[in-house]
Amino acid sequence: MNIPSKYIEEAVEQLASLPGVGKKTALRLVLHLLKRDDKEVERFSNAFISMKKQVKTCQSCGNIADNDLCGICLNPIRDRSLICVVEDIRDIMAIEATSSYKGVYHVLGGIISPMEGIGPADLNIQSLVDKALTGEVHEIILALNATMEGDTTNFYLYKKLKNADVVISTLSRGVAVGSELHYADELTLSRSIMNRMPYEGVGG
Amino acid sequence: MNIPSKYIEEAVEQLASLPGVGKKTALRLVLHLLKRDDKEVERFSNAFISMKKQVKTCQSCGNIADNDLCGICLNPIRDRSLICVVEDIRDIMAIEATSSYKGVYHVLGGIISPMEGIGPADLNIQSLVDKALTGEVHEIILALNATMEGDTTNFYLYKKLKNADVVISTLSRGVAVGSELHYADELTLSRSIMNRMPYEGVGG
Repeated sequence: MNIPSKYIEEAVEQLASLPGVGKKTALRLVLHLLKRDDKEVERFSNAFISMKKQVKTCQSCGNIADNDLCGICLNPIRDRSLICVVEDIRDIMAIEATSSYKGVYHVLGGIISPMEGIGPADLNIQSLVDKALTGEVHEIILALNATMEGDTTNFYLYKKLKNADVVISTLSRGVAVGSELHYADELTLSRSIMNRMPYEGVGG
Repeated sequence: MNIPSKYIEEAVEQLASLPGVGKKTALRLVLHLLKRDDKEVERFSNAFISMKKQVKTCQSCGNIADNDLCGICLNPIRDRSLICVVEDIRDIMAIEATSSYKGVYHVLGGIISPMEGIGPADLNIQSLVDKALTGEVHEIILALNATMEGDTTNFYLYKKLKNADVVISTLSRGVAVGSELHYADELTLSRSIMNRMPYEGVGG
């Protein structure tokens, strides 16, 4: 692209460095920003600097937080004996959006992926094992993505945790609520049949 | 969305204020930025502030520029008697990318659109008429989008310019190079037939 200003070019390059943002999209966004007034552009820019300066990692679970502990770990109502292990903080937001979980979380910060060079040592696994060994934890739910890497990580965690006195569970897999049977893939459908549940009249 | 940090929330809101960027995409990009080091985030943010501070509008054609005049207007090789009228600066980049135009440009800054409340007075039309009346301009090419608003604007410009001693032309419309006839819409195909050209052996 033949951009007639080196400042615009730098702004486009910075935006296009974000994953999934192409140069054409970046240019469209930058030209949009250029039309805003100075104050608005300053507020836009400062949002990223203050985010980088202020945001911390919860020392207990690895969630993002404005203080040393996140809102979930600070909440006295949450059940500290129930830990849900997730890959990253977006999974926490997804589970929190359901309002159906009352335990706490543990963020691994990734999953084991030899293809991307991520091994167990790169993840927050030791602190999870330490928590499990305190005797204060009753159950650990492995809530990783249903991919090969997720399964590998689940198995690794299971081996690490099996000596601790905790129940280890995982999310149920099956046909999504509201979806039609013939659209489900074979693996999901076969797991749904294998793990069938007693029919209880309402819901299922 | 239940974002556990007000700083992240502000950054997500700022990104999602850009056209075409949703909250989920914005969150993904913000979490990506959060993983970068301080220097990189600072460079990212400063790019927008310096762009806003430094970028000027070319006083002659309305293109973006780092100085009072843009690179095209400053170029002594460009033909100043040939002016191509475009809606915005992205059209200049598109035409420049073809390397087949040697004249200068005039950016309208929009097109007449009663639906969006944009009338002739909101566009850089008077300065175009002034240029046409100097007697130094030989031809004006109307290169607006082939939409109803574009056609309306073309007609308005034609009426304003017809008393000046300039040739007024517009881009040729027709079947795109490399495309198949049966995919062209009826209007484009019928214009292609009406405006048929003498066959010259090579190209066409």
